[in-house]
Amino acid sequence: MTQKTRVGVIGLGYWGPNLARNFFELPNAELVAVADLDQQRLDRLTSRYPGVVGTNDYRDFFTMGVDAVVIATPPAAHFRIAQECLENGLHVLVEKPLTRTGEEADELVAIARRKNLRLMVGHTFEYNPAVREIRRLIEADELGEIYYIDAVRTNLGLFQLSADAMWDLAPHDISIINYLLGVEPVSVAAQGGSFVLRNYGIHDVVYMHLKYPEGVMANVRVSWLDPNKTRRLTVVGSKKMLVYDDVESLEKIRIYDKGVDAPPYTDNYGEFQMSYRYGDVNIPHIPWSEPLRMECTHFIDCIQKGETPLSDGVSGMRVVKLLEAASESLRTNGSIIELNFTLPEDVIDTTTAEPVGD
Amino acid sequence: MTQKTRVGVIGLGYWGPNLARNFFELPNAELVAVADLDQQRLDRLTSRYPGVVGTNDYRDFFTMGVDAVVIATPPAAHFRIAQECLENGLHVLVEKPLTRTGEEADELVAIARRKNLRLMVGHTFEYNPAVREIRRLIEADELGEIYYIDAVRTNLGLFQLSADAMWDLAPHDISIINYLLGVEPVSVAAQGGSFVLRNYGIHDVVYMHLKYPEGVMANVRVSWLDPNKTRRLTVVGSKKMLVYDDVESLEKIRIYDKGVDAPPYTDNYGEFQMSYRYGDVNIPHIPWSEPLRMECTHFIDCIQKGETPLSDGVSGMRVVKLLEAASESLRTNGSIIELNFTLPEDVIDTTTAEPVGD
Amino acid sequence: MTQKTRVGVIGLGYWGPNLARNFFELPNAELVAVADLDQQRLDRLTSRYPGVVGTNDYRDFFTMGVDAVVIATPPAAHFRIAQECLENGLHVLVEKPLTRTGEEADELVAIARRKNLRLMVGHTFEYNPAVREIRRLIEADELGEIYYIDAVRTNLGLFQLSADAMWDLAPHDISIINYLLGVEPVSVAAQGGSFVLRNYGIHDVVYMHLKYPEGVMANVRVSWLDPNKTRRLTVVGSKKMLVYDDVESLEKIRIYDKGVDAPPYTDNYGEFQMSYRYGDVNIPHIPWSEPLRMECTHFIDCIQKGETPLSDGVSGMRVVKLLEAASESLRTNGSIIELNFTLPEDVIDTTTAEPVGD
Amino acid sequence: MTQKTRVGVIGLGYWGPNLARNFFELPNAELVAVADLDQQRLDRLTSRYPGVVGTNDYRDFFTMGVDAVVIATPPAAHFRIAQECLENGLHVLVEKPLTRTGEEADELVAIARRKNLRLMVGHTFEYNPAVREIRRLIEADELGEIYYIDAVRTNLGLFQLSADAMWDLAPHDISIINYLLGVEPVSVAAQGGSFVLRNYGIHDVVYMHLKYPEGVMANVRVSWLDPNKTRRLTVVGSKKMLVYDDVESLEKIRIYDKGVDAPPYTDNYGEFQMSYRYGDVNIPHIPWSEPLRMECTHFIDCIQKGETPLSDGVSGMRVVKLLEAASESLRTNGSIIELNFTLPEDVIDTTTAEPVGD
Repeated sequence: MTQKTRVGVIGLGYWGPNLARNFFELPNAELVAVADLDQQRLDRLTSRYPGVVGTNDYRDFFTMGVDAVVIATPPAAHFRIAQECLENGLHVLVEKPLTRTGEEADELVAIARRKNLRLMVGHTFEYNPAVREIRRLIEADELGEIYYIDAVRTNLGLFQLSADAMWDLAPHDISIINYLLGVEPVSVAAQGGSFVLRNYGIHDVVYMHLKYPEGVMANVRVSWLDPNKTRRLTVVGSKKMLVYDDVESLEKIRIYDKGVDAPPYTDNYGEFQMSYRYGDVNIPHIPWSEPLRMECTHFIDCIQKGETPLSDGVSGMRVVKLLEAASESLRTNGSIIELNFTLPEDVIDTTTAEPVGD
Repeated sequence: MTQKTRVGVIGLGYWGPNLARNFFELPNAELVAVADLDQQRLDRLTSRYPGVVGTNDYRDFFTMGVDAVVIATPPAAHFRIAQECLENGLHVLVEKPLTRTGEEADELVAIARRKNLRLMVGHTFEYNPAVREIRRLIEADELGEIYYIDAVRTNLGLFQLSADAMWDLAPHDISIINYLLGVEPVSVAAQGGSFVLRNYGIHDVVYMHLKYPEGVMANVRVSWLDPNKTRRLTVVGSKKMLVYDDVESLEKIRIYDKGVDAPPYTDNYGEFQMSYRYGDVNIPHIPWSEPLRMECTHFIDCIQKGETPLSDGVSGMRVVKLLEAASESLRTNGSIIELNFTLPEDVIDTTTAEPVGD
Repeated sequence: MTQKTRVGVIGLGYWGPNLARNFFELPNAELVAVADLDQQRLDRLTSRYPGVVGTNDYRDFFTMGVDAVVIATPPAAHFRIAQECLENGLHVLVEKPLTRTGEEADELVAIARRKNLRLMVGHTFEYNPAVREIRRLIEADELGEIYYIDAVRTNLGLFQLSADAMWDLAPHDISIINYLLGVEPVSVAAQGGSFVLRNYGIHDVVYMHLKYPEGVMANVRVSWLDPNKTRRLTVVGSKKMLVYDDVESLEKIRIYDKGVDAPPYTDNYGEFQMSYRYGDVNIPHIPWSEPLRMECTHFIDCIQKGETPLSDGVSGMRVVKLLEAASESLRTNGSIIELNFTLPEDVIDTTTAEPVGD
Repeated sequence: MTQKTRVGVIGLGYWGPNLARNFFELPNAELVAVADLDQQRLDRLTSRYPGVVGTNDYRDFFTMGVDAVVIATPPAAHFRIAQECLENGLHVLVEKPLTRTGEEADELVAIARRKNLRLMVGHTFEYNPAVREIRRLIEADELGEIYYIDAVRTNLGLFQLSADAMWDLAPHDISIINYLLGVEPVSVAAQGGSFVLRNYGIHDVVYMHLKYPEGVMANVRVSWLDPNKTRRLTVVGSKKMLVYDDVESLEKIRIYDKGVDAPPYTDNYGEFQMSYRYGDVNIPHIPWSEPLRMECTHFIDCIQKGETPLSDGVSGMRVVKLLEAASESLRTNGSIIELNFTLPEDVIDTTTAEPVGD
C-alpha cells in the first residue's frame, strides 16, 4: 500500500478550514500541521483535529516531514509562499487565483517543473460533477458546434480591498470556460463600474468579453452589487443549448433540444426562411459528490502517481494572465487585449495528464 | 366635444393589426383606412372592421381626410413614408426604430416642427405600467442614487435579414433606460457574435455597454439565440435594488430593501468594514393596462391637445443615434463611441411635454 | 364536400363569446344565430360577426334551420334548454357541468339516444394537448401501474351564489382523472369549509377523496380562497411520476424517472431495504393547439360523421353524479358515498367512439 | 454562574448525532455520555468529541451524574426509555412523536409532573424563526380571522416499516398548526393509500382533515411517494393570506395583501357583489437561526430556570393522541374521530410557560 501523503495547510481564514477537514478525512493523506498568524484560528483547528500541529510560521513545515502544502492565504501571499515551499521540495496546491501576475505564475510553473513537483491551483469547479457532465456533453458532440457561452456570477458582497469583483469571482467562470472549451482564449476586453468602493477605485461590477479560436465567444458578468445570488452559465451550440444553474440544489443542468438552422446562402431575400427546432428539455440526474473533496483527492493522487493535475500550474497561469489582461482593458476603457500564454523558453516541457475520471 | 381624429394604418404585417384594432376601439379616434401591398392582409382587416377602407397605396390617405397615420412597415421604409406623410400635413406615429440613421431621424424631427405636427415613435415600454412604476420609484428617491442598470432580452428567434438582434431587440431596453434615467447617454461600446447568420454578417448576440452622466452605467444583452425567453432589468441603487421581469405575468417587479455601505475612506485597511443591509422583498401590486392601448390613447390625446408626446421624435432619434453608434462600435471591435444628440441648428425649438399621467 | 353544420349559441356571458368565435371561424360550421336575454350582449356579438342573427329567445332557432346548439347559460338552465333542443331535433353541446342532478343527466342521455342526436359536454381539458399526452404516456405504460393522482385547483375567486367551489372547479379535475384512468370511480368522500359565504352555506374550499378500481386513489383540492392560482396534477406510477402544471405556459409536463421498489415480502425486518431509483427529469415538447378549438371541431366532426363524442353525455353524467354524491358527503361530514353510474334500463345502448385523434 | 447541565444522548442513528453536536457546543450544557447498541456509531461519536463516554446501555447514565437525557431512538422505544429516565430523576427531551399511544404520553406527563422534571418533545418547527414569525403575525392580527390552513409535506422516501408516512411526517405539521392556532383541534378524519408497502399495510400517502374550534379547518397532506420535496403551509385569513415554503432557502414566507369580502346577507341575488382586494406581496427578511440549536438551548434553559418547555409533554401528548385518532379514522374509511386531550384526573396540574423569546 502507498504511504500516506503528509499535508500541511497554510492559512485558516474562510476557506482553509474546509481544506483542512478534507485532508484530515482522506484515507491516503495525513493532515500533519496547520499554519496561521492568528493563534485563535490555530487553536480552534487543532482542538478539532487532535494530533495536528499548529504553528505561526509555515517554514516549520520544512522540518516536519511534510510532503505537500495547501496555500489558502490572501492572494497577495500566494506567490511568495508557493515559491518557498516548492524550493524546499514540497508539492503545492494554491487557492485561486494562483498568483497576482502572469510573471509570478510562470515562475512557479518553472520551479515546479525543474524540481519535478506537483503544482496545482484550486479551480474547484473543474471538479464539480455538473461541470464535468457539461464537458462530457460537449466532447460527445451532443451540443454540436459551440457558438458562445454566457456566464453570470452575482450576489451582494463580499467586498474586499485586496481584490476587485473580477479577481474575486471571475476565476471560477474563466477556469470553467477554459475547461469546457479545451482551448486558450485569444483576446479579452472588460468594462466595469466602481460604485460602493469608488473612493478606492475598486470595481464592484465587471463585464468581460472573451474571444476563443474559431469565432467562439464568451461573456462573463460578475457583480458584488446585485440583489440576487446568481451562478448561471448558458452554453449555446448548433444542435442543443444548455443552462447550468449552480444555485439550484437538484436540477443544475437543463438541456434544451432546440435550435435554428439558416438556409443555404441566397441572394433572394424573399426565399429566406429560417428553420426552428423545438424539442424536449432534459434535466439529467447527476450523482453528487463534493467538488472540494474530489479536488483534494486528485491532488493526493497526482502526487502519489506522479501525474500532472487537471488544474495544474499552467491552468492557473492562464487564468491569471487573462485577468491581468482584463485589468489592463479596464484601465484603458475596454480596449481589446490580445492574449499570449506561452511559457518562457527556459521552462522544462512536460505533458499534461488526462482529466480525472476519464 | 372634440371631433374624432381620423387615423390610417400603413403596414399590416405582425404588429400593424394590433395598432389597427386599438385605434378602431378608441373612443376619440376613428380608423378610416389601412394600407398594405398584400391584398390578402387588406381583405382580412377590412372584413373584420366594416367601414374601413383598404388600399395598396398609402398616398390615397392624402385625399381621404385622414388626420394621422401609423407606420408599421419594415424599418427600411419608415423614413420615406413618414417624411411624405408629414409633408402632406399628417401627424405620424412610427414603430420603433424611428429610422435607420440619425440623419433621417433629425430630418423627420425638423419637418414635424416646421409643420407643427405630432411625430411619435412606438416605444411601447414607456407606456408599460411596470416601467412607469419603476420611474416613479426612482423619482421618489426610493432606490437612492442609481448605480447601474443591467438589461437582458433574449429568446430563440425571430431572425431577420433586414436587422440584427441589436436593432431588433435593443430599442426596447434603450428607450426604457433613457426613460428611467431621464438623461442622455454619453457613450456606447458594443461587442457581439454572428453565428447562425454568419454568412450574412448579421449579429445574433450583442452586448452593449452604455455610460450615462455622473458615472451611471448600463449594460444591455440581447440575443436571438438563447434557450429561454428573458426580459429582465436590474436596477441597482444606493438604497434599494429592483428586478423587473416582464416574462412574469403577475409579479413583474421585486424591490429588494438591501444594500451595502462603505465606511468613510481610511488608509487603515485593518479598520475597513463594509456595512450590509438585508431587508424585506416587496412585490408591488401594479394595476394592469395594455401598454399599446395607452400608447395609442396618448398619440390621439397629443394630437387633440397639441402636446408633445412622451416618446416624441427626439426620443426616437436618440435611440436611433445610439444604435448607429453601437453598430459603428461593433464594426470596430468594441471601440467606445461618444454620443451626440444635438439637433441641427436649423431645427425649430419646441418644448417637451410632461410625461403622461404625471 | 360536406355541408356546413349550422350552429346557434345560447348564453353570451363569460364563456359563450369564446364558443361563438370558434364556431364562427371553423371551416365546416356556420354560426347562424346567438341567443341571450341581455340585448347589449347580443348587439356586441352581432356587430362583431356580421350575418349572425341575435335573439332573446333560443326557441327562434327551431325555425331557422339550426342543426346544433351550444349551451353556455348558468348551470341551472342547462337541463331545461338542452332537453327542449334535443326534443326539437338539434345536436347539443352543453358547458360543464352537464346538469345539476344525475337524474337530469340520465334523461338527456336517454333523449339523445332515442332521437339519435349528438349530446356532448364541454370538458375542455379532455381536448388539451398536455392532458392527451399524459393519457398517451399512461396507455403506453410509461408510468407503470398508476398508484394515485393528486389534483389542486385554487385561486382567489370567482365566488358565486349559484354553485360552490366544488361544482365550479372540480368538474375539470374529475373529467381529467376519469379520462386519464379510463375507468369509473367507485366512491367519493368530501370535506370542506364555508368561510366568506358562510351565511349562504356555500363551500369556498373542498377536499375530495376518490377511490377507483384496483386501489387507485385520487384526491382533489379546490379553493376560491387561496393567494395563488394553482392548476397542478401529480400522477404517481410504479415506474415514473409526473407533474402537470397548467399555469406554466411552456413547460406544462415534467416526467420524473424516479421511484422506489419494495423488496419481496419478508418477516425479517432487519433485511428490509427499499430500492430507490433517481433518474432524469424530462419536459416533453408539446405542440400547442387551443383546447376549445379542438373541442368545437370534434363536436362538428361527430355530428357530420355520426360518431359519439369523446366527452359525450355519459361522460358528463358521470361527473354530475360524482358531484352529487360529493355534495351528499359534504352534508354528512365526509361520509363515503358509493357511486353508481348505471343508466336506467330503458336507455338505448350505443357504443362509445374512439377518442379523438387516436 | 449556573452550573452546566450534564446531558446524555440515547440513540445515534440519523438525528442523534445532530443533537449530540448541539449539546456539545452549548455553553451552559455539557455532553457527558452517549448510548447506542451499535459500537461503530459510538466510536464515531466519541472520537469526534473527546471526553464524552460511550456506552451500549443508557442505564449507565444513572450513575454518571447525568442531569438530562435526549432520546433519539426509534419511536417504539421512546416510552420505555423516557419512563425509566424520568423515574430515575432525569429531565427528558424525546424526539417526535413523543410515544406511540396517548395512554403512554399521559403516563409520561404524569411521572414528570409528580417528580417535578422537565419533559419536552422535539417539535423542532416550533423553534423555527419562520414559524415563529407566522405566529407573531397571527397574534398581531395581521392576517385577520384565520379561516383555514393547508399543509403539504411530500418527497420520495424514506420508507420505514416501523411507522407510516403519517406518523413519520405529520407530527411536524400538526405541531406547527397547533402552535400557530394556539388551541386544540376538535376532530380528525384521515384517508390514505398503501402502494409501495401494500403487503405490509403501511400507508405511504395520507390526507388528514382537522377541525379546530370556531369553524377553523386544517388539512394535511403527507406522502413518501411524490416526485418533489414539498414543505408548504398556506394560512388563509380574512385580511391577508400567507404561504410558508420551507424548501426555499431565503424567501420562506410570502404575505399576500389580498382577500375577498362578502356583502351583507341579501335575499336579492341580483345585488350580490363580492369585493376583491389585490395588494402587494411582502417577503419579510427573517434573521436565521438553527431551529435545533434553539430547541436545545430552550431545553437547558427550562431545566435551569425550572420552567415548562414550549413543546412540553402535553404538547407532545396532543400530537400523539391526534395521530392515534387519525390512525383509527384510516382503519374505518375516513370516519370522523372526536378528539379529547383531557389528562387523567390524578395528573398534577402545572402551568404552561410562556413561549420562548416572547
